[in-house]
Amino acid sequence: MARMKTVKSPWAGRDRNAEREEKREAVLHAAAEAFAERGYHRTSLDDIAARLGITKPTLYYYARNKDDLVSAVATRALDRILEAIEGDRESTALAQLQHLLRHYAEVMATDFGRCIIVVLDAHIGGPGGDLMQRGMRQIDARMRELLALGTEDGSIARGDPKLTAFMIAGALNGIARWFDEGGALSAAMVAEKFVNQLTAGLAPRR
Amino acid sequence: MARMKTVKSPWAGRDRNAEREEKREAVLHAAAEAFAERGYHRTSLDDIAARLGITKPTLYYYARNKDDLVSAVATRALDRILEAIEGDRESTALAQLQHLLRHYAEVMATDFGRCIIVVLDAHIGGPGGDLMQRGMRQIDARMRELLALGTEDGSIARGDPKLTAFMIAGALNGIARWFDEGGALSAAMVAEKFVNQLTAGLAPRR
Repeated sequence: MARMKTVKSPWAGRDRNAEREEKREAVLHAAAEAFAERGYHRTSLDDIAARLGITKPTLYYYARNKDDLVSAVATRALDRILEAIEGDRESTALAQLQHLLRHYAEVMATDFGRCIIVVLDAHIGGPGGDLMQRGMRQIDARMRELLALGTEDGSIARGDPKLTAFMIAGALNGIARWFDEGGALSAAMVAEKFVNQLTAGLAPRR
Repeated sequence: MARMKTVKSPWAGRDRNAEREEKREAVLHAAAEAFAERGYHRTSLDDIAARLGITKPTLYYYARNKDDLVSAVATRALDRILEAIEGDRESTALAQLQHLLRHYAEVMATDFGRCIIVVLDAHIGGPGGDLMQRGMRQIDARMRELLALGTEDGSIARGDPKLTAFMIAGALNGIARWFDEGGALSAAMVAEKFVNQLTAGLAPRR
């Protein structure tokens, strides 16, 4: 008798994957919320499990430990900023920088973005911490590059690209510390205002 | 017989006080260095005692606990910023704001200044934490006030004082995270460049 061919239904498979993916999403969102609210040291896996109404053993199915979890959350936010790193090469360097900063600012106003700061502040090591360090250096390098290119194409005033990039990063990372989702300004509005203020400077233009 | 008047020598008294004061200074400096290097959670009173070559019981004579110690360090830095809050009332609002920002930036480049961020990030409560929150709010309020006054006297471009103050605080608090005392730029140079960049903006002035 010929061996019966077992066909794995793609539908069944997809459903299981979709279900797992959906649960993983819920875990990441609960973790982002918890870490953004309470920081690294005051958040436990118990807190996150409680937010989801699941047991800690169930949570362990999605994350081995706290570092893995906060890193997974922060990595997603980092990826969203990195998406904006390649601007429209036809635009001026200033326009490309503004595009990157707008993205960066908006991400920092989300719970996921706050977790970038949580990971950096808590000096989390391992692959998650390394990834975050590397990603932030990549963003820093791109900002410096655009600042330098901008003095060449005339769209950005001459300055110190390294210090200016640090200044911008400080201003944008700060959003993670004070932004209030229930506040009067949306993340997009804050991003817009920050970019405009950084571009125009404090002194009036005559 | 007349009661003998006992005269407490001011010199002996001053010496003891001076000695205690000197030791307290050493404790504060060692604490500032430790907290600035390793943050709140990874610094212990044992570390600080070890840096001073003293025992923990001796250290307890100067600080009841970690929170007291980091708060005492941060309070000194805060006081240095607050000294610059009252600018020269004859100057434009922009000049007064620049004066405050220069001070603020310079303090943030010191170990003591970094401890302001350590206290805020670690959400330290009690009188020390409250003092820090209050002090930072006072600086924020003064920056907003000067930003508003500046649009009246024409020295500052119209903007959103609240958001601009947040932006500035983010940029300056960031100095505490990256400034390297052994680096090429002094704290004063960083402060100067930051103030100039914030004032001029990214876009070239024509």
